[in-house]
Amino acid sequence: MEPLPVGVLGATGAVGQRFIQLLARNPWFRITALAASERSAGRRFGEACDWRLSTDCPEQVRDMVIQPVEPGLDCAIVFSALPASAAQDAEERFAAAGYGVFSNASSHRMEPDVPLLIPEVNGDHAQLIQYQQARRGWDKGFIVTNPNCSTVGLVLALKPLHDAFGVERVLVTTMQAVSGAGYPGVPSLDVLDGVVPYIGGEEEKMVQEPLKLLGSFDAASGTVRPASITISASCNRVAVRDGHMEAVSVALATAASTADVVAALTGFKSRPHALGCPSATDPTILVRDEPDRPQPFRDRENGQGMAVTVGRVRPCPVLGHKMMVLSHNTIRGAAGGSILNAELLRAQGVL
Amino acid sequence: MEPLPVGVLGATGAVGQRFIQLLARNPWFRITALAASERSAGRRFGEACDWRLSTDCPEQVRDMVIQPVEPGLDCAIVFSALPASAAQDAEERFAAAGYGVFSNASSHRMEPDVPLLIPEVNGDHAQLIQYQQARRGWDKGFIVTNPNCSTVGLVLALKPLHDAFGVERVLVTTMQAVSGAGYPGVPSLDVLDGVVPYIGGEEEKMVQEPLKLLGSFDAASGTVRPASITISASCNRVAVRDGHMEAVSVALATAASTADVVAALTGFKSRPHALGCPSATDPTILVRDEPDRPQPFRDRENGQGMAVTVGRVRPCPVLGHKMMVLSHNTIRGAAGGSILNAELLRAQGVL
Amino acid sequence: MEPLPVGVLGATGAVGQRFIQLLARNPWFRITALAASERSAGRRFGEACDWRLSTDCPEQVRDMVIQPVEPGLDCAIVFSALPASAAQDAEERFAAAGYGVFSNASSHRMEPDVPLLIPEVNGDHAQLIQYQQARRGWDKGFIVTNPNCSTVGLVLALKPLHDAFGVERVLVTTMQAVSGAGYPGVPSLDVLDGVVPYIGGEEEKMVQEPLKLLGSFDAASGTVRPASITISASCNRVAVRDGHMEAVSVALATAASTADVVAALTGFKSRPHALGCPSATDPTILVRDEPDRPQPFRDRENGQGMAVTVGRVRPCPVLGHKMMVLSHNTIRGAAGGSILNAELLRAQGVL
Amino acid sequence: MEPLPVGVLGATGAVGQRFIQLLARNPWFRITALAASERSAGRRFGEACDWRLSTDCPEQVRDMVIQPVEPGLDCAIVFSALPASAAQDAEERFAAAGYGVFSNASSHRMEPDVPLLIPEVNGDHAQLIQYQQARRGWDKGFIVTNPNCSTVGLVLALKPLHDAFGVERVLVTTMQAVSGAGYPGVPSLDVLDGVVPYIGGEEEKMVQEPLKLLGSFDAASGTVRPASITISASCNRVAVRDGHMEAVSVALATAASTADVVAALTGFKSRPHALGCPSATDPTILVRDEPDRPQPFRDRENGQGMAVTVGRVRPCPVLGHKMMVLSHNTIRGAAGGSILNAELLRAQGVL
Repeated sequence: MEPLPVGVLGATGAVGQRFIQLLARNPWFRITALAASERSAGRRFGEACDWRLSTDCPEQVRDMVIQPVEPGLDCAIVFSALPASAAQDAEERFAAAGYGVFSNASSHRMEPDVPLLIPEVNGDHAQLIQYQQARRGWDKGFIVTNPNCSTVGLVLALKPLHDAFGVERVLVTTMQAVSGAGYPGVPSLDVLDGVVPYIGGEEEKMVQEPLKLLGSFDAASGTVRPASITISASCNRVAVRDGHMEAVSVALATAASTADVVAALTGFKSRPHALGCPSATDPTILVRDEPDRPQPFRDRENGQGMAVTVGRVRPCPVLGHKMMVLSHNTIRGAAGGSILNAELLRAQGVL
Repeated sequence: MEPLPVGVLGATGAVGQRFIQLLARNPWFRITALAASERSAGRRFGEACDWRLSTDCPEQVRDMVIQPVEPGLDCAIVFSALPASAAQDAEERFAAAGYGVFSNASSHRMEPDVPLLIPEVNGDHAQLIQYQQARRGWDKGFIVTNPNCSTVGLVLALKPLHDAFGVERVLVTTMQAVSGAGYPGVPSLDVLDGVVPYIGGEEEKMVQEPLKLLGSFDAASGTVRPASITISASCNRVAVRDGHMEAVSVALATAASTADVVAALTGFKSRPHALGCPSATDPTILVRDEPDRPQPFRDRENGQGMAVTVGRVRPCPVLGHKMMVLSHNTIRGAAGGSILNAELLRAQGVL
Repeated sequence: MEPLPVGVLGATGAVGQRFIQLLARNPWFRITALAASERSAGRRFGEACDWRLSTDCPEQVRDMVIQPVEPGLDCAIVFSALPASAAQDAEERFAAAGYGVFSNASSHRMEPDVPLLIPEVNGDHAQLIQYQQARRGWDKGFIVTNPNCSTVGLVLALKPLHDAFGVERVLVTTMQAVSGAGYPGVPSLDVLDGVVPYIGGEEEKMVQEPLKLLGSFDAASGTVRPASITISASCNRVAVRDGHMEAVSVALATAASTADVVAALTGFKSRPHALGCPSATDPTILVRDEPDRPQPFRDRENGQGMAVTVGRVRPCPVLGHKMMVLSHNTIRGAAGGSILNAELLRAQGVL
Repeated sequence: MEPLPVGVLGATGAVGQRFIQLLARNPWFRITALAASERSAGRRFGEACDWRLSTDCPEQVRDMVIQPVEPGLDCAIVFSALPASAAQDAEERFAAAGYGVFSNASSHRMEPDVPLLIPEVNGDHAQLIQYQQARRGWDKGFIVTNPNCSTVGLVLALKPLHDAFGVERVLVTTMQAVSGAGYPGVPSLDVLDGVVPYIGGEEEKMVQEPLKLLGSFDAASGTVRPASITISASCNRVAVRDGHMEAVSVALATAASTADVVAALTGFKSRPHALGCPSATDPTILVRDEPDRPQPFRDRENGQGMAVTVGRVRPCPVLGHKMMVLSHNTIRGAAGGSILNAELLRAQGVL
């Protein structure tokens, strides 16, 4: 397949850099445009960007000149790493101008005609695009979003349980990595010898986004009917660079043994992997049976950072079942997830 | 009150050092004997002990010669910081020989005739002592235990809620400090950029100990009737030196608003403080209303490490109420808690 | 002695908070005014300040209304925790208006008529004040500065060696705490599993300030003749909250054994302590002989954070002698040092 | 080239695991035997080994049965990750039995007839092997060692300077990663919010090993004439997982500008890379010109962990030149270095 020319909005930030790192080695896409705020626009990327990932800035983008965040970029689709405030308007302008917009921002996630997508979970929600275009009068442009970094691990682990047994109630406590707050992000004085038991807006996202993700697409109305699950989330920041850990308790509609739950998790099939999407990994859900796993630095890179690692599946005296869930927050939970969304649409012929 | 001569068993270890640090400034007790394993016995404490607390080793103990862990120590009571394996027999030998034993070890905690004591919570359980002595044929010696370091913060926060509304179900996820594992304890390779989602035996203790602590003493039978509460615990180790954080969700028997819950917590009275116990603090439960508290290094020293700090009291969509609870694991959760037990018995005239 | 009314400039920042914490328990001073930038001015301190120290914000300042950073404050002297940019002009305005200004900012440190003061090291440099007032036409106001947080530990350790043997060359490598950069300061992504081998402007300060501090006051010219020492500094940020560690190698003018060096360090007398200054500690230089000390969290609180802890004094094959030096960067290295400067002037009758 | 069958001694430990991880993807070697202490011998590797690296244990070794550390292993050469105490005798037994022994242990490093080897630095020292065999009466077996993990980065950075300008004096202060101490290794209570200014035996190794490494092989006597350099080392442990940082000051025999020094470093050629050794990287010395590099987690993986990253090359007022040096301590500084030694001998036809 000929690589599709793509742009990155908000290219110099933490998530923008991750987009570039992952796209540079993606066989289905080719970076042809970088855009960022006025402070950086007009400068060469290699100079304007304070690159902070552990692999070097890819050669191919170093000499690219950063452009303003305005339609006119020479590409078919854009990946948006814009902050929520800037994303709201900018992403609509791009969609209206005919670009496919794959956004990591939270701005449009909960709008009824915008797909909130995890390819392994609710790929069929991509059908919302045509309703979105019709409703907004957009010709070929559209907006597709991926969930919040703490939502994606939870929902991937819940999906096979919901399919097999029906998930009714979920109580989740997170221990989240500092990279989730970007750079400079979390001050070191807050997490060295510390835990911060609060992340603004995070608990609300974890309560709402799973309902849309696990909801069902209704072709008649062109909407997603939210799942009927009660969720309680308690979000904490800990001294970890990458990888969100989540202690998850679940009440199921149907009786199930621990073995049943493990079987559902290990038996989960990745549809985007079957479709050949290069960022898809199989298994998407990796179940470990050691007593002390998953652990952030030992398991976050599983499946090139796209797998979700689950461990300690065991009975919960209060809700029925509990487990630990780990996912890489800036790969699976941000840039990698958004790229997989674009791959899915490409595999389906939408792009 | 004349200071009572006391000994410390397991004096050279992490908890033993904390006992010595706290007892050295306690007006009701005076350290007259130190005992440790054969490797240290016969040597001067200042030489044998690799002191690792942030305040210096108290002058008064540096020249004391360490004795074997055998009855014959010149003191009335002993504080036991022995490992569980050694504690089982040694503590019984001391009690049989007439010593009051205040133990931080887990060995005897769940035995029916041994008080598992938090003075602010179940001081009346101290009455078990007479049944213990009668049953075991001990003249004046006895064993009193304090709970596991992760149990104490939880139970102190639950106590006023249980009294006011009845606690039915509890789901707790901990983020525990490395000092809870002693020294050398947790390898740095496990917690630098990491979280370990497992602490051997910890979840079981958190499930069982609260039932005894919140149970009621039945004078007729001389036993404690355990509370009827269902608890689920998920225990994690994080990169924090001191201070266990706990995300706690609670289902109450009686309807209560968040304001009711906060009022119950803030209105909690410390009986040992009223009795003048020097290690007791008032308030024992400190409720903070900032959105991002408690935090380990900012709140663990509250009340000289004997207070429990509670924050983020708010509704839990699944169980009803939730909150964050922090307590200092080696002070309130170990040595300080054990000393307060002895103070209570002294205030009550038992010692 | 009647407590002197004092103000704090830049009261809401990290160093400002430390000034308030220390002054609140200082018997010689009483906080009567707090000033900060326009964003905070007019608000009550308890509301405007995001207090971040591990002890609570002192009661006495919570209801104080923050004033603008302009002369007119109701106090005799001010402690300045202003950023260097704001300090340059503001401190001069206060001095011109008759206030004694004790500044932690770097702005005026190297001006020839401004004392750069460590009371134990060069208390006699306070005589510069009269030349400063004469030259600038200031009546009773003046500016006194304390050195950079990484300079103070080094110079205190060098002082007795310089007096006894003559220091000729110094090579120092620092491992500095993140609190030195204030709040939010160092991003956690920079120091979790990391070391940053660069702190802007720090190496230059460590090279220049010691020459003035160890220089001699020349009454004839009213100036300080800088010491003739060659210094090389390499400054690094590490994952430590408080306490700057420094590996120091020294070439002396006179032959000396390791025992001679240790004797000079341990024999060092604190003149401000002899004068009764409440923040002075004795010994100021604490020499430890364990092989693995000093260590930040174990030794930084020595002498209430005002002592310098030295360890591993041993031969240096290249320069002659080497040692490890630790000092608390926000107490001895900032607020505490500045307060001790004011105490010295009070003890000398200047205030 | 046909992969050579190799064994790993001490296979279950931290360095042993790293050997296995690197050998599993090395085209010149094939693991055919694993040996470890009696506790593990007889068990399958996948069960006996508590694998702790961030990539999974290679499939190919999981079912191998661990053998005792005795000659009789089915392989031509062995890589030794034995602790120094066990290595002394065991390695000699293997060499006597005809195995080529590539040892990471310190036991034999400084013996006159044992090559202490860094292929890019002193590959010609491999000629010692024939003298070793003659002297010890070994037929085809031999022992080759690699230097201590903190030595290798220093010596690689010094080598081009020594060749171009002559290195006379070196003063180095290290900030070393905890993985250098193996597992469990450094207790978390020692490095969380801490720095340990002492690593047993480390400073001595850094003073002695470079002299042998930078020395010259004298064919007449069959010995290495040590370089004439005075070194002073100060070694510290910091809260970093992998990657030793070193602040290095150097006095050169010949005048050189900073540009000259940078040119020498960047112009350094890797002979093992030219020979096609698969673990060799080019450049071996990577010079960065950003003000705040190298940093452990951003630069330690350079060149698959085999490159040394140098930054902040600048004048040192005391010794002439200074710089920061970073190398990966368990790859370049241990297993990877040892494997490269074997590759060099293979490329030279010795194996």
